[in-house]
Amino acid sequence: MSEDTAAPAFDAAFRARFETLLAWRRDVRRFRRDPLPEGAIGRLLGTAALAPSVGHAQPWRFVHVASPDRRLALVTHVDAASGRAAQAYDPARAAAYRALKLHGLREAPAILAVFCDETPAAGHGLGIATMPETLRYSVVMAIHTLWLAARAEGIGLGWVSILDPGPVAALLDVPADWSLIAVLCLGYPECETTEPELLTSGWQDRRPVVLVER
Amino acid sequence: MSEDTAAPAFDAAFRARFETLLAWRRDVRRFRRDPLPEGAIGRLLGTAALAPSVGHAQPWRFVHVASPDRRLALVTHVDAASGRAAQAYDPARAAAYRALKLHGLREAPAILAVFCDETPAAGHGLGIATMPETLRYSVVMAIHTLWLAARAEGIGLGWVSILDPGPVAALLDVPADWSLIAVLCLGYPECETTEPELLTSGWQDRRPVVLVER
Repeated sequence: MSEDTAAPAFDAAFRARFETLLAWRRDVRRFRRDPLPEGAIGRLLGTAALAPSVGHAQPWRFVHVASPDRRLALVTHVDAASGRAAQAYDPARAAAYRALKLHGLREAPAILAVFCDETPAAGHGLGIATMPETLRYSVVMAIHTLWLAARAEGIGLGWVSILDPGPVAALLDVPADWSLIAVLCLGYPECETTEPELLTSGWQDRRPVVLVER
Repeated sequence: MSEDTAAPAFDAAFRARFETLLAWRRDVRRFRRDPLPEGAIGRLLGTAALAPSVGHAQPWRFVHVASPDRRLALVTHVDAASGRAAQAYDPARAAAYRALKLHGLREAPAILAVFCDETPAAGHGLGIATMPETLRYSVVMAIHTLWLAARAEGIGLGWVSILDPGPVAALLDVPADWSLIAVLCLGYPECETTEPELLTSGWQDRRPVVLVER
């Protein structure tokens, strides 16, 4: 095996640093207004495309929401969906819900919508005969890759899911066979922490990992 | 801000190494038979639980398939599903499909099935009113975290999706509100490469990333 194709070994120092990256990743909802560096999004998406995909189908499709009108429509849609979601809670929990900051769609310097091409030309259907949802799972892994790569350069990401995928896809005028997986806010975070805001706010504590044997 | 809570900065050397980890990750189907180190699975699952989850619901549930009988039933099920999938192809593509090694369920020293608790006690429903699938997406990010953490210590992972989730869940006798996300093979890989086997075998090449502006 030649030098340049030798498999890399990752040492304990790297593994510890990687664990630190995971621990400090966070879902960011409070962004500074300063823009991302020129070319950052394209570069980060290149890294995201190293994610695994079923059948090597690479079904991720990215939409940069650059139009202020479209951003405003997205904010209006999400705030309305969030208001409806609040009504499902009892009064105490509803007050806690309303006190949470759930997204940074107004402030974040960049908004990406991420879709799954449900009928990708690539992959030849491998692995999706019985579990077609693995196409969407592949897109999720690309998003997670983007999330970690962004954090490694100090850029925060927040995943917004309080929305109706159909209307948001229509708003963004994408092909009919693209299904919405996520709306992402990207930008420099106001502050950094190892603890999720949902934990420090008292919404939800950490739980032990469930592992059973069969 | 005190020293021990100061946010870490990740330098260019770490980022380059992280990109190397992503590039060499791979879906592994060819495993050596030697066992994983004692305690490796528990440790890796602790790292996987650093993944993001909607509403901090932490809906990942792990099943270690330790029974040889259950492993054999799983192999039989997957091989049958794979045989049926092959029938969907034209003769040339079917021959290419049959030439692929699609899983290491027989050889891998460890098999994990990963489920999503669709009604988790944690999270209080936050973020899932309109997109309940984000619970499953959270589990996918835990799997991806496990995948990268495993690779960082030289352990390969292969995701098997050629199966019917319902019968596999029944075979593993899990609670009714757990839905199957993935069956994972874990072990030391026979060889390491930056190229997916589906690429080197000619099944599917790399595609440029699609980014559109709206």
